[in-house]
Amino acid sequence: MGSLIHYRIEPTFLFSQSPYVMSKKLVIALGGNALGASPEEQLSLVKGTASTIVDLVEEGYEVIIGHGNGPQVGMVNLAFEFSANNNSGTPPMPFPECGAMTQGYIGYHLQQAIERELAHRKIDKHVASIITQVVVDKKDPAFKRPTKPVGMFYSKEKAEEIASQTGYTFVEDAGRGYRRVVPSPEPVKIVELPVVEQLIKNHCIVITVGGGGIPVVEKRQGDYQGVAAVIDKDRASALLALELKADMLVILTAVEQVAINFNKPNQQDLSQITIGEAREYIHQGHFAPGSMLPKVEACINFVENTTNGTALITSLDKARQAIDGMTGTRIVKDPI
Amino acid sequence: MGSLIHYRIEPTFLFSQSPYVMSKKLVIALGGNALGASPEEQLSLVKGTASTIVDLVEEGYEVIIGHGNGPQVGMVNLAFEFSANNNSGTPPMPFPECGAMTQGYIGYHLQQAIERELAHRKIDKHVASIITQVVVDKKDPAFKRPTKPVGMFYSKEKAEEIASQTGYTFVEDAGRGYRRVVPSPEPVKIVELPVVEQLIKNHCIVITVGGGGIPVVEKRQGDYQGVAAVIDKDRASALLALELKADMLVILTAVEQVAINFNKPNQQDLSQITIGEAREYIHQGHFAPGSMLPKVEACINFVENTTNGTALITSLDKARQAIDGMTGTRIVKDPI
Repeated sequence: MGSLIHYRIEPTFLFSQSPYVMSKKLVIALGGNALGASPEEQLSLVKGTASTIVDLVEEGYEVIIGHGNGPQVGMVNLAFEFSANNNSGTPPMPFPECGAMTQGYIGYHLQQAIERELAHRKIDKHVASIITQVVVDKKDPAFKRPTKPVGMFYSKEKAEEIASQTGYTFVEDAGRGYRRVVPSPEPVKIVELPVVEQLIKNHCIVITVGGGGIPVVEKRQGDYQGVAAVIDKDRASALLALELKADMLVILTAVEQVAINFNKPNQQDLSQITIGEAREYIHQGHFAPGSMLPKVEACINFVENTTNGTALITSLDKARQAIDGMTGTRIVKDPI
Repeated sequence: MGSLIHYRIEPTFLFSQSPYVMSKKLVIALGGNALGASPEEQLSLVKGTASTIVDLVEEGYEVIIGHGNGPQVGMVNLAFEFSANNNSGTPPMPFPECGAMTQGYIGYHLQQAIERELAHRKIDKHVASIITQVVVDKKDPAFKRPTKPVGMFYSKEKAEEIASQTGYTFVEDAGRGYRRVVPSPEPVKIVELPVVEQLIKNHCIVITVGGGGIPVVEKRQGDYQGVAAVIDKDRASALLALELKADMLVILTAVEQVAINFNKPNQQDLSQITIGEAREYIHQGHFAPGSMLPKVEACINFVENTTNGTALITSLDKARQAIDGMTGTRIVKDPI
């Protein structure tokens, strides 16, 4: 450092250091249902997930993971609600805080499993679970009609009592009693996106937008406040893929391919559809609300707004073949 | 990008981009007791913490935050234990998973409060809470004598029944019943340290080793497994400060300065002590086990093993003055 040395650096050399040019970016959305109902089951199931993810890393992809938390946030919410209702000494836990807990809980298991698989294959890469808030719009119409059931079942009388004290909305749930419902608004902004971007630049495998992200509203610029809501994890992952300019959004679910006339004699599995075709199938009612419909809609949103990206829906065990083009359902732009 | 351009870049310019040269690094250890007993209290208390932290950021420090989780992990553990014991439908939750949940829960509140304060002061910096595992040694003698009480109180009969089923250790707790105890081993390695380092290089404010870290043992290289244990957050923060080559380890507690003859007529507050003096005071029994003793020990460990770092013990509201040298208790190397 005593003397000045002048380097010649060619732009091509600079670019070769950048993962944005070298590697394709995959945003993978994992289902919360695929994580299991207990910590033991989850620890076991994440092994298969980790193996697939490290396969993709080994093929040279930069992998970013979004995940659901439906059963897990239900579990946390229920344990706290039951414990507080029965005066065990623990406070009631607001819904966004329950979501934050599941990001820690699921992130821990996922990162541990991926770290084990990386070490086993002697791949020098790091894994980071980022506690992530996702902004929703206070004026989102979803707040006027909450639809997602959470927490315990109550009698009609008890539900009315809680509703009058808290302002919660309850609905009758298939003869089993009354249950609180929360809205499912659209994700608007990922608060910790710059952190995620920095880690990807450093070749980390990043776990983010867990459970669709902790739902917050932005009161003033940079001033966020948690709200009781559930953000669809596929929509949040689509937003993540868009913001990161990902090459592919991969939504993992229970089936290898999307089908029309699902479970009917004339069921037809789809290998590739355009946005226009997808919209037509939606119009014809082929995809179940709360199941395949939001996944297809998330894919449309990504593909429509990206320059070069494609979206893929498939199952975890077929993910690698599907990404290589052998199976799964691709959603692509309409021909111009 | 059509033609090649040759740049001249001088090394001095490159170095001026590095925070390792520009800014002093502070590792701040926050007490879990200072975070409050309920989510509402925590949301309120983190505002003061955020204000102090952003003060330090404004003064040009790179701030890394470790935090405790004593009351919070107790709360999560108790809610799940109570809920599972009373057959509400939620599974029992192992202790490391409870710790992972508190990292999400506390990290969310802390980062939100810091982000708000940064935005308010128009400082363009990002905040990241990293789910963090900390390795302990399976052969640590602490595993032979568990000391940290967690969870519910039980009758002697019920405690014996659970102990025979699970292998848990129970102790009688001050006449209130029998309570599970877990060991408090030494932290050996911070698994996600490389992620923390990357984020600091990018000028992020990082929240890590929450609750002392999720305790894991390393079965084979890179293969970690959670263990029921509590890692002291001051010891974990000292290890973090050492690994990051921090300029200062700041342990925040309930008092402005460490004292000898504490609460006696001849109480003497300490402004600066050497490691040797600190050891002598420990020998004389001035510092209470489970209270000031582990904090002083953590400071000794950091100062003894660092090249240029100092350690500081003070209160949150005096942190800024103390870091500037006006109050607090500094622990420094012995003169050579």
